[in-house]
Amino acid sequence: MTIARIGFIGLGTMGGPMAANLLRKGFELSVYDVVPAAVERAVGQGARAASCPADAARGVDALITMLPDGPVVRDALFGPDGAAAALERGTLVIEMSTIAPSQSDALRRDLEAAGLRMLDAPVGRTPRHAEAGTLLVMAGGTEADVAEATPLFEAMADTIHHIGPAGHGIRLKVVNNCMAMVGMVMTAEALTLAAKAGLDRDTAVRVMSGTAAGRGQLIMNYPNKVLAGDITPDFPLRMGLKDISLALQFGAEMASPLPLAAAARELFALAPAWGREGQDCTAMLLLMEDLARVGRAPAER
Amino acid sequence: MTIARIGFIGLGTMGGPMAANLLRKGFELSVYDVVPAAVERAVGQGARAASCPADAARGVDALITMLPDGPVVRDALFGPDGAAAALERGTLVIEMSTIAPSQSDALRRDLEAAGLRMLDAPVGRTPRHAEAGTLLVMAGGTEADVAEATPLFEAMADTIHHIGPAGHGIRLKVVNNCMAMVGMVMTAEALTLAAKAGLDRDTAVRVMSGTAAGRGQLIMNYPNKVLAGDITPDFPLRMGLKDISLALQFGAEMASPLPLAAAARELFALAPAWGREGQDCTAMLLLMEDLARVGRAPAER
Amino acid sequence: MTIARIGFIGLGTMGGPMAANLLRKGFELSVYDVVPAAVERAVGQGARAASCPADAARGVDALITMLPDGPVVRDALFGPDGAAAALERGTLVIEMSTIAPSQSDALRRDLEAAGLRMLDAPVGRTPRHAEAGTLLVMAGGTEADVAEATPLFEAMADTIHHIGPAGHGIRLKVVNNCMAMVGMVMTAEALTLAAKAGLDRDTAVRVMSGTAAGRGQLIMNYPNKVLAGDITPDFPLRMGLKDISLALQFGAEMASPLPLAAAARELFALAPAWGREGQDCTAMLLLMEDLARVGRAPAER
Amino acid sequence: MTIARIGFIGLGTMGGPMAANLLRKGFELSVYDVVPAAVERAVGQGARAASCPADAARGVDALITMLPDGPVVRDALFGPDGAAAALERGTLVIEMSTIAPSQSDALRRDLEAAGLRMLDAPVGRTPRHAEAGTLLVMAGGTEADVAEATPLFEAMADTIHHIGPAGHGIRLKVVNNCMAMVGMVMTAEALTLAAKAGLDRDTAVRVMSGTAAGRGQLIMNYPNKVLAGDITPDFPLRMGLKDISLALQFGAEMASPLPLAAAARELFALAPAWGREGQDCTAMLLLMEDLARVGRAPAER
Repeated sequence: MTIARIGFIGLGTMGGPMAANLLRKGFELSVYDVVPAAVERAVGQGARAASCPADAARGVDALITMLPDGPVVRDALFGPDGAAAALERGTLVIEMSTIAPSQSDALRRDLEAAGLRMLDAPVGRTPRHAEAGTLLVMAGGTEADVAEATPLFEAMADTIHHIGPAGHGIRLKVVNNCMAMVGMVMTAEALTLAAKAGLDRDTAVRVMSGTAAGRGQLIMNYPNKVLAGDITPDFPLRMGLKDISLALQFGAEMASPLPLAAAARELFALAPAWGREGQDCTAMLLLMEDLARVGRAPAER
Repeated sequence: MTIARIGFIGLGTMGGPMAANLLRKGFELSVYDVVPAAVERAVGQGARAASCPADAARGVDALITMLPDGPVVRDALFGPDGAAAALERGTLVIEMSTIAPSQSDALRRDLEAAGLRMLDAPVGRTPRHAEAGTLLVMAGGTEADVAEATPLFEAMADTIHHIGPAGHGIRLKVVNNCMAMVGMVMTAEALTLAAKAGLDRDTAVRVMSGTAAGRGQLIMNYPNKVLAGDITPDFPLRMGLKDISLALQFGAEMASPLPLAAAARELFALAPAWGREGQDCTAMLLLMEDLARVGRAPAER
Repeated sequence: MTIARIGFIGLGTMGGPMAANLLRKGFELSVYDVVPAAVERAVGQGARAASCPADAARGVDALITMLPDGPVVRDALFGPDGAAAALERGTLVIEMSTIAPSQSDALRRDLEAAGLRMLDAPVGRTPRHAEAGTLLVMAGGTEADVAEATPLFEAMADTIHHIGPAGHGIRLKVVNNCMAMVGMVMTAEALTLAAKAGLDRDTAVRVMSGTAAGRGQLIMNYPNKVLAGDITPDFPLRMGLKDISLALQFGAEMASPLPLAAAARELFALAPAWGREGQDCTAMLLLMEDLARVGRAPAER
Repeated sequence: MTIARIGFIGLGTMGGPMAANLLRKGFELSVYDVVPAAVERAVGQGARAASCPADAARGVDALITMLPDGPVVRDALFGPDGAAAALERGTLVIEMSTIAPSQSDALRRDLEAAGLRMLDAPVGRTPRHAEAGTLLVMAGGTEADVAEATPLFEAMADTIHHIGPAGHGIRLKVVNNCMAMVGMVMTAEALTLAAKAGLDRDTAVRVMSGTAAGRGQLIMNYPNKVLAGDITPDFPLRMGLKDISLALQFGAEMASPLPLAAAARELFALAPAWGREGQDCTAMLLLMEDLARVGRAPAER
């Protein structure tokens, strides 16, 4: 089925430019937002203004939701004048918000109970990318549903990943953003320590931009080591413990807080208890899996 | 002054191949290690065996130390049969171990008191790079001393950074390795959560290798935002708090531990107290500087 | 006004014995729970079974809710067949669940909009205490409302605290339980380290039960020091940093994880940046207040 | 053997009053400190001034060291003019400093190699207690050695614990102080959240001083539950996870940092992976032991 008419709910910092790109590519949009000015802007770009979510949903081939959190999405779909009841049976709902996976799952269950289909397809990157139509989409759902939505995604994004079955798009989005946000703090604590140590910031940034510190272990060391099944030590966990311990001592001398390094050190410290201190530092992944009992029954003790 | 004869103390996993590369490039080496087999190997490569650190130091143009920790370096230089007393006044000691900056500083003080010079020049990368002569050197010292040591560095490394004055090499090394080791855990906790969530690992790795999660904030977002003086929000700290909170909730549902994300969240949570919640996530750096009082006197309250 | 007839919603591990004690003291109860067996048990103790929350609310002088989380309380009060609509105007709703303060506040707003009154009065202690009628109540609300509810509290609790105005009961409950749960982990990490160090557990418990480690800083050192306005050092923060650093090093040698101590150390490490390293360890409170900017405007920079 | 003459090295904030109490009880002291004023004070109290550690050690029945850290103790015993060489064979060295257990062990090894005996006997409590002679001693060593030292301990302390064999005194001291310092931060983060929530401090302190939050889990819940072998849930780990999660959400809303609670939550979150979510919260101890593999071989996988 080809999608021509789209209901679009949520015209915020991200949703606004996403809708604009769909309009630019020739899709017909009926749009709804709680902020009248946002609706007016979309109308100026060619959209039809809807008076409520249900109104935005009437007669469309697909519905997109791009809203701040799970309860707001639920309200837009199932609240008073909600969209779900106004959609024709079988219509595809493309849920692009970043919400809790459990909320996304519950929405899908309720949409399917109402005879509708749902894709979880949250987006990565920034408002700037939304405007340029160069977002990244992480879609979870059937091949057929993703294929059906792809022309829409292509109007908004230049990178489209079909992550897996229903729910996997939002799951990877949550994991991805978690790691990205931890990276914000990891970088901040390193550069703050550098500053307190009197190092020149530009030099520190330039040098670390060329090492695994700045370039990311996921890209630099994980692929050839633990992810390739090789945990022979390029740099063993016991040396990692030594180095991070030196840093914590240095941080304390500089009165520079290293909350992430402090938490990380306790993981390195556990390596010998699990027989891993001589393995490559990337075997930290296996240690985390040990602790979280990945692939093992909880009751097995 | 051109260095031809080198004393080299510490022929371990890193020091062994480093010495081999110096020999290959034509330097004369007298070598010492507590492990006789390591010395024999170097002798097989053309080195002269020394019977103690002092013996390794006699008559050389420069001394390199590459040892496991600060007390061992101190002992090699100032212990019984230590190298320092055997060096000619004015000789350059190139300290390449990874040790506490305070220990490095103390060694320099004592070497200078003995009429010697010291560079702190720890190395980055792995034994494999040591063998290939493609290490990374972070040198701290005067221009002249670094220039004098550069031919030696070039025999062992393909990337040589003069970080700054004395002590800055070891300081940046400690900061760099700290961040690299935190990255080990950050990656492990993200991939463990992905596994517990049932996501396909290859897909997760492939997708996140293309986002700021995998590619590193130091490279992806910091340069154009906070490091360029721009903290207008591409993605504000308040949204970062939302996303990391979603992840922690999801981690708890999956029984997957997120110790770094948990520590990071408490930093995001502080943003409003410092008036920063509307700033770009990279302003996390400014928040850390607020907390650590970078550039402010401690007593100012 | 004297309360004689009570609607009671939520007969779980805590609510069940609480209702039983009210019945024992002669109150008339109409009870509701989603689990029929729980209702039957209460009926056996003299309660009237209600068919829904609204039914439980009809004709009562006060309504008690004791439910697992905020959404469930909201549903019981404002969902289909909810209690709020069935209560007479002016009736007192005593919300005794442990829920988010923001949810509690929202419930109060909505109850007051419906012409009702609400106390937040969560309870402390365990099911055993619920059975014995020796719970602890933390009530938030007006003097008059707390006085009106006190006979009910006295049937269920032996310790009744009027914490402050509306919302303060649930707020202190959340703070209290947080600290209690952190204490669970703090104790576990200390005893685990003791075990890994080969110490006799009974001895360790006996000794630490007599020190501030086991007896609690809130009781042992805070009252006479920081809470009394005295931060002259009995034991300065710099010594605290030394001791916790020793412990972390020891934990790493024993491969015993100290996640709380690791996080705590980073706070001690910040003391010099704020000019507090020479102050008593209890000035940690002032340092936390510095970081959280207690009593200071967020934008002041 | 009865001890009459004591060498005492280290007359700081703690050592000074400890020596004074020994003098008051009639012991003969020869004292040494790097600070002349401290020595003079002791001389005014009846001590003999020693010119160096060796001088303090000559002709004594026992030697006490009370110094700031391990290297300083080592220097006092084995450095130039060190005490060890001046002691008669068989003399008892009572090491009362708080130093790393590994340093304490190394000192004992070296003292025994020199034909001497050593007790590790660090003290708890504060300078005020040192003055009052009401310190707490944690002694590690043989029954006979502890008995020999007991009259000295009784001059300085009102609580004397023989913790176990050599090394156990300092080990428990380190564990104890770690927990005490974590308690400093735990209390601070709770009271800071209370302040940010607008709660009255006195009320918060008063109420929590009566619950397990303030009174300590080691005393309140551990003895009757996990330490008594009972992990049937008074309050199950899953409820602990709920409560600490509520607190973290509340902390984020209040912009009040909860670094310890954040770290603790990740432990609670792991409970289901280990089949423990339905067990009593005190089973957190067993979970920590699971993670640290207490009583299990490291390589067992």
